[in-house]
Amino acid sequence: MAKWSAQRERLREIIFEAETPAGRFFDVTLLWCISLSVIAVMLESVQEIHAVWGDFLYAVEWVFTSIFTIEYGLRLWTSRKPLRYARSFFGVVDLISVLPSYIGLFVAGGHALMVIRVLRLLRIFRVLKMARHIAGADMLMRALYSSRAKITVFFTVVLTITLISGTLMYMVEGTHWVDGERQGFTSIPISVYWAIVTVTTLGFGDITPVTPLGQLLTSALVLTGYAILAVPTGIVTAEIIGASAGNPTSEACPSCGVHGHLPDARFCRRCGGKLD
Amino acid sequence: MAKWSAQRERLREIIFEAETPAGRFFDVTLLWCISLSVIAVMLESVQEIHAVWGDFLYAVEWVFTSIFTIEYGLRLWTSRKPLRYARSFFGVVDLISVLPSYIGLFVAGGHALMVIRVLRLLRIFRVLKMARHIAGADMLMRALYSSRAKITVFFTVVLTITLISGTLMYMVEGTHWVDGERQGFTSIPISVYWAIVTVTTLGFGDITPVTPLGQLLTSALVLTGYAILAVPTGIVTAEIIGASAGNPTSEACPSCGVHGHLPDARFCRRCGGKLD
Amino acid sequence: MAKWSAQRERLREIIFEAETPAGRFFDVTLLWCISLSVIAVMLESVQEIHAVWGDFLYAVEWVFTSIFTIEYGLRLWTSRKPLRYARSFFGVVDLISVLPSYIGLFVAGGHALMVIRVLRLLRIFRVLKMARHIAGADMLMRALYSSRAKITVFFTVVLTITLISGTLMYMVEGTHWVDGERQGFTSIPISVYWAIVTVTTLGFGDITPVTPLGQLLTSALVLTGYAILAVPTGIVTAEIIGASAGNPTSEACPSCGVHGHLPDARFCRRCGGKLD
Amino acid sequence: MAKWSAQRERLREIIFEAETPAGRFFDVTLLWCISLSVIAVMLESVQEIHAVWGDFLYAVEWVFTSIFTIEYGLRLWTSRKPLRYARSFFGVVDLISVLPSYIGLFVAGGHALMVIRVLRLLRIFRVLKMARHIAGADMLMRALYSSRAKITVFFTVVLTITLISGTLMYMVEGTHWVDGERQGFTSIPISVYWAIVTVTTLGFGDITPVTPLGQLLTSALVLTGYAILAVPTGIVTAEIIGASAGNPTSEACPSCGVHGHLPDARFCRRCGGKLD
Repeated sequence: MAKWSAQRERLREIIFEAETPAGRFFDVTLLWCISLSVIAVMLESVQEIHAVWGDFLYAVEWVFTSIFTIEYGLRLWTSRKPLRYARSFFGVVDLISVLPSYIGLFVAGGHALMVIRVLRLLRIFRVLKMARHIAGADMLMRALYSSRAKITVFFTVVLTITLISGTLMYMVEGTHWVDGERQGFTSIPISVYWAIVTVTTLGFGDITPVTPLGQLLTSALVLTGYAILAVPTGIVTAEIIGASAGNPTSEACPSCGVHGHLPDARFCRRCGGKLD
Repeated sequence: MAKWSAQRERLREIIFEAETPAGRFFDVTLLWCISLSVIAVMLESVQEIHAVWGDFLYAVEWVFTSIFTIEYGLRLWTSRKPLRYARSFFGVVDLISVLPSYIGLFVAGGHALMVIRVLRLLRIFRVLKMARHIAGADMLMRALYSSRAKITVFFTVVLTITLISGTLMYMVEGTHWVDGERQGFTSIPISVYWAIVTVTTLGFGDITPVTPLGQLLTSALVLTGYAILAVPTGIVTAEIIGASAGNPTSEACPSCGVHGHLPDARFCRRCGGKLD
Repeated sequence: MAKWSAQRERLREIIFEAETPAGRFFDVTLLWCISLSVIAVMLESVQEIHAVWGDFLYAVEWVFTSIFTIEYGLRLWTSRKPLRYARSFFGVVDLISVLPSYIGLFVAGGHALMVIRVLRLLRIFRVLKMARHIAGADMLMRALYSSRAKITVFFTVVLTITLISGTLMYMVEGTHWVDGERQGFTSIPISVYWAIVTVTTLGFGDITPVTPLGQLLTSALVLTGYAILAVPTGIVTAEIIGASAGNPTSEACPSCGVHGHLPDARFCRRCGGKLD
Repeated sequence: MAKWSAQRERLREIIFEAETPAGRFFDVTLLWCISLSVIAVMLESVQEIHAVWGDFLYAVEWVFTSIFTIEYGLRLWTSRKPLRYARSFFGVVDLISVLPSYIGLFVAGGHALMVIRVLRLLRIFRVLKMARHIAGADMLMRALYSSRAKITVFFTVVLTITLISGTLMYMVEGTHWVDGERQGFTSIPISVYWAIVTVTTLGFGDITPVTPLGQLLTSALVLTGYAILAVPTGIVTAEIIGASAGNPTSEACPSCGVHGHLPDARFCRRCGGKLD
């Protein structure tokens, strides 16, 4: 019994850790399997390849799905806290990485969702021990997170602008150029979609203004967009500079609770009390 | 009479404040009504939906317009200073949110302007008590406002560049490629519109240069554009960094001479001595 | 004779200065004339308008050209140093603002160059006494100027990348998709033009990759472009922050010649000598 | 024998250095040859020019290839450490600049690779003694290099997002709009290509969403893209600011306690006392 448990512990180390040679070998093999299975799914969607290699890729798909299903089972079994693993980010990703194949048996085309396996590749950071990379990602996440209030406001403003300018374009382009039917700006939702495509300077060109007034409005919209879209860049830049340099810390004064002290502060700037 | 006035006061609290449960309920209901009415207007503009649900959506429009008209009346009546409310940002928005329906009775298509109701949704920040969000928006506005001189200069420069390069393209593309008629760059205003679309890297592709010289000029224009368009981003970023940091001041501590204190500092962070 | 000279002086004040009411009136009238003449040139290029209003706009053009020719003569005559004025930025602009009309007598279409008159509108900053604006423009110019070394390097790198990736695309897209004729990437210069349009994220869509390898290269190019194009934004932002905040000054130490001291420096940080 | 060696040394100075008049003349001539040969290759690819000037340009190509082959031989021969030169960046570039002509004898179209000669033009920085420029390039490289961890994370995130959103679009656009054949989003690889084109706001418009759900997803993708693409700009800006400022350190003066000295400071800028 103890031997059994020890074996499970050894397996756990191989599967969840990347410290031992065996664990490292397992992780690298896994990353290759994931990459190959994602590539297989992508290739299968190309008609010319599907016509010739369809059966082979179908087999490959099920081989990888079997491997990943077994792996998921082993992870659940060897994990010390299976529920916690199952609910973690990678636990959920591991599960939904195998589901699409089974769903594909019932729903046509559903197996394309297998591409979600690519999320499992994010494990690569752990395998390569890229502590620097994770620190970088962490800093980015914190920068984005601490800007969330400003980003929310920003998106609200952008959506309001696109809704209103989309509607204006719908009216302006609609009154002219009937030609039997409306062209391009056929409805408000499509005009709003166009406004988003325009304000972000994406500019597909599938819908374009043809009336002089519409072109004037477009010019105004895209120039306004430029001033507005400088804002998220500015926000994120300010956060990154703040995070990487020694900007006011979040440490609070033990006497009065004020925070936001400079990194070299020894005394609270509001009450004069000593900081830790 | 006093009871009447008290009732008006209670109604005012419900309508204008979001502190009491009733006030909160009123505001949330209102936000749902606004969202639904905006969605209804958008859907009505889609021909396929209009064909089937046209009458229903027409009814919905008038229900919401009635509700908002009554609400506007109540706001005017319960407000302590009705004129001040009527002239405030939200007062004007509330009024022009109901007008398009009535205008639509006389002018075809005019009711699409109802989408302006979306501006009323900005009240959401108050309902959700997102003080942080309002602070964020406020900071953005101040950053943009204090950059207005630079932004004006920037727009003047961009317009001058687009006017001149648009005219150049009109001449360059016009001398070649006649083919019976001019193509693309058919007039200076359209060429200026094209130059704006190009310099902002929007690039619809509805008008594109076809002569070698035109393509050379386009390359030069878009690369110049890149150097120029880095400027508003830089301006806004500099303002945001300046505004968000509550940047250390250059004031020095009278006791120890250390400087670089935060703007709200009352005590030196190095020696704990009192600042002026 | 003295009276004559005094009159010339009075005229000079009206034409060149904006301090007296008469001078101000002259400048505002001039700005209106310039705006109207630019608009007239633009409208004349629109075929539908030209068909109806052609003769009228032709007359307008010559009225304004006469006014500007007389004005240029007066400026030359009243200026204290006519040669210096003639060689100054506005002197040259004033001259080339009237030339296109006369050139248009001999070369068809040449009068469209009159749009260059829009440069004269830059005088608006002086008329409106927008000292703030000029300071802003000045700061921008200095920020761009002090970044010129980095910007030169940046453009060299971008041109090298676009030349090489354009040629690669020419070869990749050329070997496939013959279909009787090459499509899109028909020559290296056009492919380089495409690469510039792509790397700046302009993306007209007049030429697009159709081979899988070409699409892969395009993806790599635009993602690389993103990392590279963050650079000018970063450069300009850094300069603007440096220019607006109190970054190291360019003042040199009188003792040892070291410069780049902080704005509050009283002693040289290298030799300890006193600064002015 | 010694004379022979001295002659080789003299030749080495002319070829590798730009200090002597002869060396300078050699370098400037070389840059002109490179520019002309690159322009010749580009012009040769234009069909109309090839038809008329093909033979002439073919001759030009071989003249320059001969010159560059001899030059490469001389560099190898005169260099003190030929192997080290052959393996250096410019050594490799010099070699692959002449190879395409010879390859072109066997593989049709291969000589277009000669455009790679443009890399040799980077020598211009040395010839013009643009120490400033090289310092600028150096700073940029260091800024990019020290950001490599964050940039890697950024690209991983972008690729993951484009893979998943590309697959989603493939499914969404595929279920609708069959019309005999799928349109636009015909396979996952093409959809991923589209997602990259979209998220970078390139927006060719060769493939565009036509279903309402696809347009909604596109809007979400491009807005998300905006928040994400602000990140590399922020990273690079932060690095440039950090690198260019020689930012004040947090070290304090032992005499007066003032801190925020420049990194190369040896004396306190406030009291003139010696720093550690």
